[in-house]
Amino acid sequence: MGEVKKIKDISLRDIEIKDGFWTNYINLVKNVVIPYQWQALNDEIEGAEPSHCIKNFKIAAGEEKGEFNGHSFQDTDLYKWIEAASYILAAYPDPELEKTIDEAIDLIGKAQQPDGYLDTYYIIMEPENRWTNELAKHELYCAGHMIEAAVAYYEATGKEKLLNIACRFADHIDEVFGKEENKLPGYSGHQEIELALMRLYRAKGNEKYLNLSKYFIDERGQEPNYFNLEAEKRAERIGKEAVLKEHYYMLVQDGYKYMQAHVPVRQQNKAVGHAVRAMYMYTAMADLAGEIKDEALFNACKILWENVTESQLYITGGIGSSDYGEKFTFDYDLPNDTAYAETCASVGLVFWSQKMFGIDQDSKYADIMEKALYNGTISGMSLDGKSFFYVNPLEVWPEACENRQDLMHVEPVRQKWFGCACCPPNIARLIASIGKYIYSQQEDKIYVHHYIGSDAKFNVGNANIKLTQESNYPWQGNIKFLVTVENPVKFTMALRIPEWCSNAAVKVNGNILTMDIITKKGYAEVEAIWCNGDVIEITLPMTVEKLQANPNLRKNTGKVALQRGPIVYCLEEVDNGADLADISLPRDCSLQAEYDSNLLDGVTMITGEALRSHMSDWKGKLYKRAEYNTVPIKIKAIPYYAWANRTPGEMIVWIREC
Amino acid sequence: MGEVKKIKDISLRDIEIKDGFWTNYINLVKNVVIPYQWQALNDEIEGAEPSHCIKNFKIAAGEEKGEFNGHSFQDTDLYKWIEAASYILAAYPDPELEKTIDEAIDLIGKAQQPDGYLDTYYIIMEPENRWTNELAKHELYCAGHMIEAAVAYYEATGKEKLLNIACRFADHIDEVFGKEENKLPGYSGHQEIELALMRLYRAKGNEKYLNLSKYFIDERGQEPNYFNLEAEKRAERIGKEAVLKEHYYMLVQDGYKYMQAHVPVRQQNKAVGHAVRAMYMYTAMADLAGEIKDEALFNACKILWENVTESQLYITGGIGSSDYGEKFTFDYDLPNDTAYAETCASVGLVFWSQKMFGIDQDSKYADIMEKALYNGTISGMSLDGKSFFYVNPLEVWPEACENRQDLMHVEPVRQKWFGCACCPPNIARLIASIGKYIYSQQEDKIYVHHYIGSDAKFNVGNANIKLTQESNYPWQGNIKFLVTVENPVKFTMALRIPEWCSNAAVKVNGNILTMDIITKKGYAEVEAIWCNGDVIEITLPMTVEKLQANPNLRKNTGKVALQRGPIVYCLEEVDNGADLADISLPRDCSLQAEYDSNLLDGVTMITGEALRSHMSDWKGKLYKRAEYNTVPIKIKAIPYYAWANRTPGEMIVWIREC
Repeated sequence: MGEVKKIKDISLRDIEIKDGFWTNYINLVKNVVIPYQWQALNDEIEGAEPSHCIKNFKIAAGEEKGEFNGHSFQDTDLYKWIEAASYILAAYPDPELEKTIDEAIDLIGKAQQPDGYLDTYYIIMEPENRWTNELAKHELYCAGHMIEAAVAYYEATGKEKLLNIACRFADHIDEVFGKEENKLPGYSGHQEIELALMRLYRAKGNEKYLNLSKYFIDERGQEPNYFNLEAEKRAERIGKEAVLKEHYYMLVQDGYKYMQAHVPVRQQNKAVGHAVRAMYMYTAMADLAGEIKDEALFNACKILWENVTESQLYITGGIGSSDYGEKFTFDYDLPNDTAYAETCASVGLVFWSQKMFGIDQDSKYADIMEKALYNGTISGMSLDGKSFFYVNPLEVWPEACENRQDLMHVEPVRQKWFGCACCPPNIARLIASIGKYIYSQQEDKIYVHHYIGSDAKFNVGNANIKLTQESNYPWQGNIKFLVTVENPVKFTMALRIPEWCSNAAVKVNGNILTMDIITKKGYAEVEAIWCNGDVIEITLPMTVEKLQANPNLRKNTGKVALQRGPIVYCLEEVDNGADLADISLPRDCSLQAEYDSNLLDGVTMITGEALRSHMSDWKGKLYKRAEYNTVPIKIKAIPYYAWANRTPGEMIVWIREC
Repeated sequence: MGEVKKIKDISLRDIEIKDGFWTNYINLVKNVVIPYQWQALNDEIEGAEPSHCIKNFKIAAGEEKGEFNGHSFQDTDLYKWIEAASYILAAYPDPELEKTIDEAIDLIGKAQQPDGYLDTYYIIMEPENRWTNELAKHELYCAGHMIEAAVAYYEATGKEKLLNIACRFADHIDEVFGKEENKLPGYSGHQEIELALMRLYRAKGNEKYLNLSKYFIDERGQEPNYFNLEAEKRAERIGKEAVLKEHYYMLVQDGYKYMQAHVPVRQQNKAVGHAVRAMYMYTAMADLAGEIKDEALFNACKILWENVTESQLYITGGIGSSDYGEKFTFDYDLPNDTAYAETCASVGLVFWSQKMFGIDQDSKYADIMEKALYNGTISGMSLDGKSFFYVNPLEVWPEACENRQDLMHVEPVRQKWFGCACCPPNIARLIASIGKYIYSQQEDKIYVHHYIGSDAKFNVGNANIKLTQESNYPWQGNIKFLVTVENPVKFTMALRIPEWCSNAAVKVNGNILTMDIITKKGYAEVEAIWCNGDVIEITLPMTVEKLQANPNLRKNTGKVALQRGPIVYCLEEVDNGADLADISLPRDCSLQAEYDSNLLDGVTMITGEALRSHMSDWKGKLYKRAEYNTVPIKIKAIPYYAWANRTPGEMIVWIREC
């Protein structure tokens, strides 16, 4: 691992997305989500639960009077909004939006306390009790999101005001937390600050932030557990019962596993607890491991990666199969209907995947990232950008969601906004920053992780390179890269061969290359002295695949999921009638893919022949002797991410075979 | 319906069970359950949660000091115990047991208030607040169980002391409740009094009790809803919030559907709400409808029967598919793993079935009763009589039960006793009274519902008849009846042809009868002048059947359940290895039945060839392209009722087909 050459992510200022698929999403975020969320933050949306977020800042800044309202982490809604808006700004300058953000930053600055502290809940409600409840409150989590926003805005605009606010807060945190005797030996109940400090470290080049991040990661889960120490102190003040009550929800089933603080991080070998917390922590762990070449930390990341991807990952890229605790449960426990699979957790999986690549240049990380990007993340947002899913189930029976308590968390239709509004801004910031995930540069090697139409600028040695990527991905698998250089430049193009593709082909200026020779850890590496106008083409034949789940995944035995390219499909009632569980696919069924520009903003659908029961056999009967009378039917499958954009109804990903 | 001739159930004093299957169970109840429960009622069981039941009575009787403890319906534990013990006494005189019961009755008598009132919770804790909270407290429910105990003890021993106590209480209730201006127009939040009053009416021949039962049934669900009136009154005293809080659990999802008081009972057409409440109410409705020839009431019963048996019944006879509210949900919602299927609810289904037969002499009622008797009721008790299931799931993955909040109600092993100890005494009283369900008499026709070895006495005209029934049911389907009469007697034997049997045969003194001619509504009716020593034989060939579920029952599509005779089978991990969901049965598989006297106290097991996946294909993989590599395996299925009596592990009823 000491040998790994530094991986550089591309800056959003160096890439312009021109993609049939993602440009639509970015436009939604730019034109619908960001303006809508700004209104939401300002409590200007009629009928929606008020956010109170900006109002909290105004009260903390002394501009208004009142009480704090909302979750203790309400501040992050503004920070995540600034972060998403900044990513948009980086590619699409917009003076109006920039002015709005600057005003918000001014407000944040006014709310900041003289010592750098900034958390509107504590400023307004309990100024004397700062840093007394890291388990349940979210000061460090808020700080992390503020830092991410600050770095994003700085990178987009070059403006330092928010970055300075963030540094002052980070400096204050550095004074409060640490192993030194005069500091609190604590860390956050909700990880986020760790990954944010890594970003701040890179933005400012200041190792203090790296060290602080490392401290938080190293200290987590050590004995005596800080949360116990903290609880004892708080119990002296508010009583033991009150402390227990505060923590009950989080800890009743899992103890400190809930926030991955049950053992030190290097000893963790199963993904446990709250999935979003886990993802943010693993992201920071991988980032740090790569940065400081920490083998033990990387090994922990690798073991956790294997556990998640080999035992706890929905085929959609969803993670966290339990509503209660929004958490991982145990290996192979991936129920389809009671799934949680929070949008934010899949967004976090994208972050983690990117950082894993930083320490191990294997395509498996981008494979999983792709799975999440095209399925379980964007399923969180409607095609009009106006409604959102927290929970991304793989099987929905609306009547059951309405009537069964154990399915109350599953919504058959996307909701406008949430009291705890973490998912909409999280999906927005992911989409707005999609450009960051397409390429990585490792000295003179350019990795292409994702096939997303774009113009991207690179610098190898002193030469400027522009790569123009064109495709109809994810619907078609032929992708073309055009190289624009002033003079010939030697560099390597490393093109990911997706795990779903078994016969990829690469051509350079029309000449077919031998894949066996050039493929290394899932990337087809083409080293050349590239000239202006050179064309690299990769063909990834997309066939409709029937995938099975590991037989230990008990709910999916005897079933298949349809996938074509990176897209996982589902059946919806609107296309296939109710009672989707009755549909079965013969093993030898033929399935066709066809692009329909009128369907769901343009998707490739899959059609085929399947079977249903003769319902007339069943009149008035609940059980009877086995018979095998079936009726042939046509089925139509649509991309999973696009479900619930038409008439509400049943949906299934896993289809029974017969 | 006006034409229906009176149906008479057999008295337990007229029947002696001599059955390979049930005698074991009765002995367990007699020798293990009843003594154990008596100790439990007296808080004499080490390590078990104390019941406090007898202590409550002693405090109410003024014999001890202290507070009431336990649920507000704790009294019923004693009543149900007396009822079960009385059924045992009826067949097995036991002066020791009778003395114990008499002492308990003395105690109950001392606790009774001068006006007849008797509920230890209110007597001890809130004497001024009697009859103010019929929704959530259980005074009438307790009264009902006391009446049932009193009738049972009276019928077993002829002693009237408890019956008189019960009458005094019932008379008091009659003075308190009713449509008259000076009475409360209320009814119970937990039905039970209605069916109990019907029993009291028959025991005493006093129409007052019939009319009171009819009042409770008629008034239920009328507008303005009594529970609202009552809540308003209580709110004046304890505040609105306190009232809401009391009712929150029950009402949050379903309102008065929870206790079937959302509309008048004659308008109810779907089984809703708490399943035990529903069963007790439907039992009373059917009993009353038969007694007073109330066509509208019978029609409601019939519609509800159809709804339950055609849309909301587990194949085991389990009902109520939701843990939350222990309730019915909606048609075809019968998940196997998150099932509730409370033992008490299936016991209630037996009661209801019997009363339905009273108004419609169709075998379908006894078919369902049989299903519940041999499967979902006795599954509630271990083979040693020492531990119990509340919840009777059809699929168990112990790791999921331990780790998933939505499966916390499912125990993979039976528990010793429960804080709310309704199921153990309920299963005990059912088993102890099994003789009541075998025969019905309608003038000169003797219906045989169940094939349970026994000697039974009947009276037709003035003639005494003894029927001796012999069989190895449920393992073998050849049953023999021997008629003992002093002189030849004309009567009809009506033998149920179980729904699971397609080629039954009946012989009289060796002569085969023509089934088509003699079968009426599922009973083979043999009218004859019977002589002493006549022999009637019925043969019910038992083949291993694969049953499918209605395709609307989404969780079972593509699966079959194995049944032989009335017994539903399951696979257990101890016999078949873990990951039972991976096992699939080829459609043409051959399945063998074999009796094993050493297995589970002697059961017929089913063995056959099935398939499992090649697990070596799956190392480190969660999803992959569909392949169909299988390994042949042997499976062994055991009766569902006997599951969880060996090494704990996975269990499934529904087996995948391939």
